[in-house]
Amino acid sequence: MTGTTNPDQVDDALELARRREAETPSSRVERFGPDRALMLDCGDVLDHWQIAYQTYGTLNADKSNAVLICHALTGDQHVHNTHPVTAKPGWWNLMVGPGKPIDTDRFFVICANVLGGCLGTTGPASINPATGRVYGLDFPVVTIPDMVRSQVALVDHLGIKQLFLVIGGSMGGMQVLDWAAHWPDKVFAAMPIATGARHSSQNIAFHEVGRQAVMADPDWRGGRYDEAGISPKKGLAVARMAAHITYMSELSLHQKFGRRLQDREAITFGFDSDFQIESYLRHQGTSFVDRFDANSYLYVTRAMDYFDLAAEHGGVLAKAFAGTKTRFCVMSFTSDWLFPTVQSREVVHALNAAGASVSFSEIVSDFGHDAFLLDEPEMLAIARGFINSAARARGLGATP
Amino acid sequence: MTGTTNPDQVDDALELARRREAETPSSRVERFGPDRALMLDCGDVLDHWQIAYQTYGTLNADKSNAVLICHALTGDQHVHNTHPVTAKPGWWNLMVGPGKPIDTDRFFVICANVLGGCLGTTGPASINPATGRVYGLDFPVVTIPDMVRSQVALVDHLGIKQLFLVIGGSMGGMQVLDWAAHWPDKVFAAMPIATGARHSSQNIAFHEVGRQAVMADPDWRGGRYDEAGISPKKGLAVARMAAHITYMSELSLHQKFGRRLQDREAITFGFDSDFQIESYLRHQGTSFVDRFDANSYLYVTRAMDYFDLAAEHGGVLAKAFAGTKTRFCVMSFTSDWLFPTVQSREVVHALNAAGASVSFSEIVSDFGHDAFLLDEPEMLAIARGFINSAARARGLGATP
Repeated sequence: MTGTTNPDQVDDALELARRREAETPSSRVERFGPDRALMLDCGDVLDHWQIAYQTYGTLNADKSNAVLICHALTGDQHVHNTHPVTAKPGWWNLMVGPGKPIDTDRFFVICANVLGGCLGTTGPASINPATGRVYGLDFPVVTIPDMVRSQVALVDHLGIKQLFLVIGGSMGGMQVLDWAAHWPDKVFAAMPIATGARHSSQNIAFHEVGRQAVMADPDWRGGRYDEAGISPKKGLAVARMAAHITYMSELSLHQKFGRRLQDREAITFGFDSDFQIESYLRHQGTSFVDRFDANSYLYVTRAMDYFDLAAEHGGVLAKAFAGTKTRFCVMSFTSDWLFPTVQSREVVHALNAAGASVSFSEIVSDFGHDAFLLDEPEMLAIARGFINSAARARGLGATP
Repeated sequence: MTGTTNPDQVDDALELARRREAETPSSRVERFGPDRALMLDCGDVLDHWQIAYQTYGTLNADKSNAVLICHALTGDQHVHNTHPVTAKPGWWNLMVGPGKPIDTDRFFVICANVLGGCLGTTGPASINPATGRVYGLDFPVVTIPDMVRSQVALVDHLGIKQLFLVIGGSMGGMQVLDWAAHWPDKVFAAMPIATGARHSSQNIAFHEVGRQAVMADPDWRGGRYDEAGISPKKGLAVARMAAHITYMSELSLHQKFGRRLQDREAITFGFDSDFQIESYLRHQGTSFVDRFDANSYLYVTRAMDYFDLAAEHGGVLAKAFAGTKTRFCVMSFTSDWLFPTVQSREVVHALNAAGASVSFSEIVSDFGHDAFLLDEPEMLAIARGFINSAARARGLGATP
């Protein structure tokens, strides 16, 4: 980014940029006080909090063309613009933009950093107004419904009574389901992708490994690393490496890397990155720590673990959607073993039992869980069709 | 073990016991000098080395009833006796014992700790005779063929010209395949279970995460922790936690733990072990570090990563088994995603192409990769049938 060749300097510059984003994001930001305090599931109240977000396109006169994108675990609001820390392109340029399925020439697109995140919405990396210090573990543990409540406040603030569409994959899909369940009148159409209505035991297990890796790093310092001017980079990198494996399929790893060696002719009988997959994973780990806060990682993984939409209905998921008028388009991917199709089917069965309008597609893909972020023509075509059909039903005019 | 209630004291007692086993094991041990130097794939030569092993049953007069069991990654030679460190029962009591499929009333059963291990066979936790210090990372990186070479030396020393059976699961199965490929005349029958002829990209990836977790722990100290009287317990525990998930199936995790809470009525909005799966994984991690050496973990995972039986034959696995007279029984488990059935099928296809005698069973099981260690009646019945049939063919008399 800076043109320097000293990796330490680059790291520091990235980390400084990231820390700046936590409090004063480059994106739009709304700050709320006691008159719009955020009541959390844990019982705590945030009476000074902020939400950072991006918008693309123009809100129409009757405010009926708003699309809310909910981002995944380590995503952020920078859906369709250059990232302020990494300088990488927007993470969902394939889905969002002029002429794309979420057409910014037709729709007013909103994406907000999640509560507990580290890109400008209040989270453990933010300043605690009560102490003037970074929250760290003093930040209350937040849930997916809490994240959605913060988005509801933003949408209200923007004067939007009903979102035309709420869409997201993975943890974003959990938010979509929560929106539809708890705020049904505010959601005309919903697209939960590669997600589930509750986090599975295996997924909790992988998250717990990641958290333990972070907390095992002595530089974590009980979450107070920020004040020491350090961060648990090694632990967070290990967490990311483990998680990254779960985002890909065995087949895609095999096709992309197989047992190919990294810049060498033969194995070296040592512990360097002999294999390309090792080199790739190490890069994933080390580049992640520059753009993400370790405590935030603990909080957002915990929010996913806690998600169980049926729990408040005695385990009957259909009751969460009783009487819904929202139209749903559910998608899963054949090679996704983190949120396998069976979890989407549970959602679809519940929606059917609730008498909802729902279409479901299991898309044949080798890309594993990450497929929703990638160029999957079938996913993009289905999204386009569903969105255009819903737009006609909403009176948003014919497809351009 | 000691009756004390101070967990630190217990840990220390276990760790001391483990360190003692590395050099002076409670089991039988053979020590070899320059006259039986071990030539390693990396080019190094071990001219003072030892192999620790257990035997059960009696070797018959013509030494034709010997069964070699090859253990898995973190297993050891204590197949059918109380473990000298953990005091737990033998790890394969279901398969081995009087009247069991590997009947110790009929067969002479041998199991040796692998080269690079930490229970008495030479490895990174052993004393380097050249320096008088623990090897640590000065130990040469060993391979599956190296492990098998050490076992060949032992079997030769015992005066056994041909093993009646070589059997093992996972990394043990890799050794079985290597025995059959490189020492075909010494193997009458072979049972590779839940294994493959090469380590997949995904499996290398999980191993690399584990190694990085160990090496990220500052107590690892470049592998020289032993001299400081410490060990990288936190890093090794994280490595074990990640690995343990891969040994189970999603279904078995769901059935065993689901989203059930640990000793509490509701989630606590914190980072304690709210869920049973978290508590279970943490226990798996912390109990593992008492019985296993962190450097050994690096070495044995690396040996598995390097395994690729077809590589020396231009990628044609069938050539590895050309002309074999060994009879094979290959087994896989439906829910094993670490060594899925497709990897066993590759082995079976190669054996068929080589004209070998081979039977193959994919066993329906919910237990994932660990199924080979558990009470899987179909596996035990198939093993019994194959072993009895092979025993008749070997002239070992009728089934008792």
